[in-house]
Amino acid sequence: MKIKDVLTHGPLIGSEKIYVPGQLFPELRVGMRRITLSDTYNEDGSRTSNAPVVVYDTGGPYTDSAYQVDLEAGLPRLREPWIDRRDDTTRSEELGSEYTRSRLQQRALDGLRYRHISLHPRVAKEQCVTQRYYASQGIITEEMEYVAIRENQLIDEAKERHAMAGDPLGAEIPSYITPEFVRSEIARGRAIIPANINHPELEPMIIGRNFLCKVNANIGNSAITSSIAEEVEKAVWATRWGADTVMDLSTGRHIHETREWIIRNSPVPIGTVPLYQALEKVHGKTYDLSWEIYRDTLIEQAEQGVDYFTIHAGLRKEHIPLTLKRLTGIVSRGGAIMAGWCTEHDEESFLYTHFEEICQIAARYDVSLSLGDGLRPGCIHDANDTAQMAELKTLGELNRIAARYHVQVMIEGPGHIPMHLIPENMTRELLDCDEAPFYTLGPLVSDIGAGYDHITGAIGASIIGHQGTAMLCYVTQKEHLGLPERNDVREGVVTYKLAAHAADLAKGHPTAYLRDYAMSKARFEFRWRDQFHLALDPERAQEFHDETLPDEEHKEKHFCSMCGEHFCSMRANRSFRQALQSRSAVPSEGLALSTEAPCSHHR
Amino acid sequence: MKIKDVLTHGPLIGSEKIYVPGQLFPELRVGMRRITLSDTYNEDGSRTSNAPVVVYDTGGPYTDSAYQVDLEAGLPRLREPWIDRRDDTTRSEELGSEYTRSRLQQRALDGLRYRHISLHPRVAKEQCVTQRYYASQGIITEEMEYVAIRENQLIDEAKERHAMAGDPLGAEIPSYITPEFVRSEIARGRAIIPANINHPELEPMIIGRNFLCKVNANIGNSAITSSIAEEVEKAVWATRWGADTVMDLSTGRHIHETREWIIRNSPVPIGTVPLYQALEKVHGKTYDLSWEIYRDTLIEQAEQGVDYFTIHAGLRKEHIPLTLKRLTGIVSRGGAIMAGWCTEHDEESFLYTHFEEICQIAARYDVSLSLGDGLRPGCIHDANDTAQMAELKTLGELNRIAARYHVQVMIEGPGHIPMHLIPENMTRELLDCDEAPFYTLGPLVSDIGAGYDHITGAIGASIIGHQGTAMLCYVTQKEHLGLPERNDVREGVVTYKLAAHAADLAKGHPTAYLRDYAMSKARFEFRWRDQFHLALDPERAQEFHDETLPDEEHKEKHFCSMCGEHFCSMRANRSFRQALQSRSAVPSEGLALSTEAPCSHHR
Repeated sequence: MKIKDVLTHGPLIGSEKIYVPGQLFPELRVGMRRITLSDTYNEDGSRTSNAPVVVYDTGGPYTDSAYQVDLEAGLPRLREPWIDRRDDTTRSEELGSEYTRSRLQQRALDGLRYRHISLHPRVAKEQCVTQRYYASQGIITEEMEYVAIRENQLIDEAKERHAMAGDPLGAEIPSYITPEFVRSEIARGRAIIPANINHPELEPMIIGRNFLCKVNANIGNSAITSSIAEEVEKAVWATRWGADTVMDLSTGRHIHETREWIIRNSPVPIGTVPLYQALEKVHGKTYDLSWEIYRDTLIEQAEQGVDYFTIHAGLRKEHIPLTLKRLTGIVSRGGAIMAGWCTEHDEESFLYTHFEEICQIAARYDVSLSLGDGLRPGCIHDANDTAQMAELKTLGELNRIAARYHVQVMIEGPGHIPMHLIPENMTRELLDCDEAPFYTLGPLVSDIGAGYDHITGAIGASIIGHQGTAMLCYVTQKEHLGLPERNDVREGVVTYKLAAHAADLAKGHPTAYLRDYAMSKARFEFRWRDQFHLALDPERAQEFHDETLPDEEHKEKHFCSMCGEHFCSMRANRSFRQALQSRSAVPSEGLALSTEAPCSHHR
Repeated sequence: MKIKDVLTHGPLIGSEKIYVPGQLFPELRVGMRRITLSDTYNEDGSRTSNAPVVVYDTGGPYTDSAYQVDLEAGLPRLREPWIDRRDDTTRSEELGSEYTRSRLQQRALDGLRYRHISLHPRVAKEQCVTQRYYASQGIITEEMEYVAIRENQLIDEAKERHAMAGDPLGAEIPSYITPEFVRSEIARGRAIIPANINHPELEPMIIGRNFLCKVNANIGNSAITSSIAEEVEKAVWATRWGADTVMDLSTGRHIHETREWIIRNSPVPIGTVPLYQALEKVHGKTYDLSWEIYRDTLIEQAEQGVDYFTIHAGLRKEHIPLTLKRLTGIVSRGGAIMAGWCTEHDEESFLYTHFEEICQIAARYDVSLSLGDGLRPGCIHDANDTAQMAELKTLGELNRIAARYHVQVMIEGPGHIPMHLIPENMTRELLDCDEAPFYTLGPLVSDIGAGYDHITGAIGASIIGHQGTAMLCYVTQKEHLGLPERNDVREGVVTYKLAAHAADLAKGHPTAYLRDYAMSKARFEFRWRDQFHLALDPERAQEFHDETLPDEEHKEKHFCSMCGEHFCSMRANRSFRQALQSRSAVPSEGLALSTEAPCSHHR
């Protein structure tokens, strides 16, 4: 089996890749997914065309049928000319990380190593090359226009807008996203574009309360069995179903080498928790962790191109006693490591005391910081407790420090939270953290959903997404039980895309509703293929339909297996609509649609 | 294959059936499911026992290991002595339904027929035998004490209450449910016990805003393939996973006979939409529907023991033009049928004009009425529109008429509703319908979730459940695409139980939280088997765990496959807790738990 066969590629059914040029930067080619729809057959025999629906595409080049996958070459480096043009970076003389240098010298790793590894990674000429820095200077970058185009999803070309008023709960979502709006949101610290200068392969995306709600998928190696191609495939697979960013939480022996392959082949931002690798380096002994080892890990990963780091710097020594009355203590792995270190050394967390240096490193590579919630509650009992809220306040402090370094920041949030306590999380985050993008895990609204925790999480995610959370970290159905497999990742990502979309609809995001409108019109007109293609998971929708009605001709039929051909509400709808039309002056727009209701087997 | 092998039976893993006696009625034996937990192993080598968690059981006798399934005999008729004792019913001289009589005369059906069919069904001696009638007279029935005991889930025997304050949003949930409270809620029309006098096999359950949130599962035959045993199994299977009621929406040739088998073997209330069968009787021609045929169908089904009828009487002729501007028209099958009839005849709906007679029939058998929302929106576009709200007002009128006949009523609700428009549905229902129990389908918070619509629905269901909806009608992942199969039913029921439970937690239901508490304590103490047993779907939880760690010994281990043995936050938690303990005067309760955090592969 060739490596390229390992990576899933090709368009989703019913979609084709299109590229939208920029205006400020005409050379931009923003990849989108165009879902072409079939015609409506009218009562009188005529046909009316239906405008295609365009959605942004996290799949990168992999979903372009013209793209030749080459794992060893990596993805095209689309951002390279942009970064070159800014002329604010230089190529390092040598690798900045001692660890990276030592790995390179190990001949035994040669077979694992990505071949085209850069020995001279980019670094800022001066102190800061972040998108936030440029935004604060009033400068619109290529990345900013790119995400503006992407967020609009070609809404301006849609013939009908079909807007629906939402309840934005304080969010300020414009009807059209301009590059200037992107710039202003980044400058205010309300949005981030995670985009390390050493990850030029990345297609820029934006995370912020006033943009489409995003989804992160976690991947992690299962130490023994995974090959490198399999690891890359996990990331590609997650983006195929809509993951906006991917966190690589691997903990094995070859994470350095594997990470290189993943970044070179990832069209979406890659996040990590550098603490995990630092702990590997000291053979799992928390006591032996130190700022020096951690710092070297940050540089190692920043030079590889990691786009955002989770940093558990908000968990301070003084917070630890607050967790002793908890039912499930500290459930964050990073949080537990740091609590262990602080206690063993009887010292303040080195992540907290060295936070300004962390910001300095982040600023030089434009690594965004995701301030980790090491004290997030691991059960309903511990939700919104003093430990959690004390840490959140500290995250707010750190956010203000990072702002001074023009470092892009998001704030991580819980966890296990019952529904009625979710809004308080958002309200406090906005207040304590100056509206920095909130990035939550779950929240799971109950503890007893084991085996269905993607759903327990999606319920909370929809609610907190509506409240204003900018990115939702997915939870899979294997949560609390085991490692997610391929199918769990797909199910988890699509479930969370659904939660994010529900939140966008509720907030009244101007581009979100068009797809629902098109879907329901297709449903009413029995355009089955269009329904599959408009679904979040077109393959599964078609597969479910075909389980009972596999023949191709059934995709043209005006019924489905739920009620069958002879017991379908379409006949009733048709007859009363026609009768009313012939009897009275019904507004013609009311009867323009082609008469049939979708089958429903309910009541 | 013997018939009894077709019906799934036996306890869920880790559960045993117990029976709790009554106090007012000592002969009551309320079946519950007791989940026995293993001991906590303390640091010092001692053990602490964990109290069992008791939950109510929708599985009826099937989940009692001592019960011998006998499809042909039907379930034990536990309510028969209660009904006899009230001495308010009589045995009919002959069957009241002409249709039933004609079916009995068809020799070709003999092979299909339930053998012990009653030729003399019960009927009220006077006009009314409803629970609501007794409640209004200040009388507590056996059914009322039964549901009070069931709702309490033996919370009074729990050593620790572990209550968590919720936000009931206007619900008035007492800390302990007394039979008198049940009576008063039914008298006020705020709760119902669907319990036809001809369904003595039923284990009573209550539906109301101030009780645990319930879940209904729809089943329907797939006309060609299903055998009768398979149809019964569908209902039993749904109750195994937690369906509180089952609606039989079959439309085939033998629905009369099949229904008899289902009711005789169902431990939960059975609901139907009599209009479907009435339409069958006129060979699918809506024009030929008439009050007489419909009335005979009501009596036919009431005599069989159907516990609640969905009646689409709120869709009035004047409402139909309001639907013409809709994107997806009328998607309710019952609604579309009645709209067709009204239009074809240019007459007011016979369900509306004959509603008092419907109430009179319902009162004589204690059939509860579920006032159908024939105008529920079928897409986000149509949510909360004038058609929907006009019908809801009419449902409120009808509810007041039913109250005069002491008929138990619930109100059906939507549908497709974006998150931000959900609360208005509940608020208006409470107002227009005098707090009658709300029974909603979905609501689906987006139109584009095809293939995942159990989740689209569960998101809305949790929210509307928190708002006060009393029963959630499940949606399966096959919604909009095809007929649900066995696995879809299980997935759908458990997903909706999760939504209902999340709503109960958010409302602060006093018995809901105990299970989450026990689950999280088990999780923190690595009691893996207890975690499986406390999950809503114990079998799936165990299966997922065993996929990566199949050995029995791993169920005793203090780690899981997510982080593995050597990279688990438990060590860190242990070390900092011990260190803090030795260093300072930490309250001992803070350290009583045995030190380890559950693995988490997140950040």
